[in-house]
Amino acid sequence: MKLGWIGTGVMGTSMAGHLQAAGHEVYVFNRTRQKAERLLAQGAVWCATPAKVAQNAEVVFTIVGFPADVEEVYLGAQGILSVKGACRIVVDMTTSEPGLARKIAQAAAEKGIASLDAPVSGGDVGAKNGTLAIMVGGEKSAFDEVRPLFQCMGKNIALMGEAGSGQHTKMCNQILIAGNMIGVCESLLYAEKVGLDQQAVIDIIGQGAASSWSINNLGPRVVKGNYDPGFFVEHFIKDMGIALKEAAAVKLSLPGLALVHQLYIALQAQGHGRSGTQALMLALKTLNGEK
Amino acid sequence: MKLGWIGTGVMGTSMAGHLQAAGHEVYVFNRTRQKAERLLAQGAVWCATPAKVAQNAEVVFTIVGFPADVEEVYLGAQGILSVKGACRIVVDMTTSEPGLARKIAQAAAEKGIASLDAPVSGGDVGAKNGTLAIMVGGEKSAFDEVRPLFQCMGKNIALMGEAGSGQHTKMCNQILIAGNMIGVCESLLYAEKVGLDQQAVIDIIGQGAASSWSINNLGPRVVKGNYDPGFFVEHFIKDMGIALKEAAAVKLSLPGLALVHQLYIALQAQGHGRSGTQALMLALKTLNGEK
Repeated sequence: MKLGWIGTGVMGTSMAGHLQAAGHEVYVFNRTRQKAERLLAQGAVWCATPAKVAQNAEVVFTIVGFPADVEEVYLGAQGILSVKGACRIVVDMTTSEPGLARKIAQAAAEKGIASLDAPVSGGDVGAKNGTLAIMVGGEKSAFDEVRPLFQCMGKNIALMGEAGSGQHTKMCNQILIAGNMIGVCESLLYAEKVGLDQQAVIDIIGQGAASSWSINNLGPRVVKGNYDPGFFVEHFIKDMGIALKEAAAVKLSLPGLALVHQLYIALQAQGHGRSGTQALMLALKTLNGEK
Repeated sequence: MKLGWIGTGVMGTSMAGHLQAAGHEVYVFNRTRQKAERLLAQGAVWCATPAKVAQNAEVVFTIVGFPADVEEVYLGAQGILSVKGACRIVVDMTTSEPGLARKIAQAAAEKGIASLDAPVSGGDVGAKNGTLAIMVGGEKSAFDEVRPLFQCMGKNIALMGEAGSGQHTKMCNQILIAGNMIGVCESLLYAEKVGLDQQAVIDIIGQGAASSWSINNLGPRVVKGNYDPGFFVEHFIKDMGIALKEAAAVKLSLPGLALVHQLYIALQAQGHGRSGTQALMLALKTLNGEK
């Protein structure tokens, strides 16, 4: 099938690569062409604008940075929805705003195009191994048609409801992670301050009722002082900000999420926007007077 | 071996039962004799005071409620350390204060008795199945001698350091759970408010980078409105209170833990001290104006 791919960061390059490997022809656009080189070397066709991608491809996938980028790619002057071409279905895999997903779905519908919001969880490793969780909002008919393509990229794939439901589900995922991360970092900082061996602590508490993916995968990085990004602090701040905004829109107070969001904003202010989320430990250390 | 067991609640009864099943003779005391009936029916010998237990048993285990109970059982007028009998090693498996563990270890040492603090994780199910995690503080020689007895009760058993280290490790466990629980309840409340199917959300986010024991085991109970205790709110409040006190003692601020502690205190004020920890959802609902 002729497919479109917009957004060739670490995640997008791996995900589009799986579609190529499955034999699909991929039309690609990225703001920085250089980052598309790997897909182009594997036979992808370069397009100068999102509109050009939509003119050629039946199903167009996007995974870009922030909601403003999503809006530009879909609704901008040279956006996907600015033309009538081959495109029948659009799929935004960026973690973005549920309200924007609904807005895009409506604009797409007016042009006879189906729209899915389909953010993912599983990070760079999940993208590379094709084991992402994919949370989808939109019409079932479009979901059924795209499902075989999703299966090239992920393992746990679910239609959660109407347009925006994929994004809402991803917000649930991020709210959960926010709690897990404050637990991981406060627990390991306590361990350090009272003189315990942090890795020995992870080994025993990471197996039972306190266990989480975060303590077992990010905890050991914290112990080693490795704050390299699996997932960027600045992207997590964006996600938590969306969740808080959506929660406020339905008059929902989430004090735990709000606190963690603030601590991550402090971490960003300390120069760690491009560190991994486990760098929350550094914000807690700064809070506690460590230089 | 002649063993002592003090504290025959849900946890203690299962744990002592495993020692009986392994062929040990158990001398038992509990504040309410009635709760010891199951062990007595299985051949345990009733003792009227903790001191009587210590007169008969070589190794005495305790698992009671609050630090004040631990102090009474060890250091009270009729406590374990009030007599010189058969007792060579004492093992407190209550989740209690690291400072009290050190105090007991010192008092025991003055009588030539070794002391271990060995709180557990894994709840009633872990106690019943003999799969508890056991976090131990104290001398290695005593740990090595008691290890075969621990192996009757648990699977993941580690000596974490000197007296008090078992309790400190358990605090790490509880700090981690505090984060996990706020994440679970805020995530599922968000799901409900935006109209998602909560169980479908758990099914997809509970497998990846957001996964935790809490979301997969307590999440489904929240979805069903089942707030029955696996682990009591009032015991969790005690544990978090100890962790905050210990953290303050080493000049450590833990804002996430402090927030969760406060929400659980509110939950207790709302009449849910004897509910399970997943009832945190109810405190969040009350906070958000639900009657």
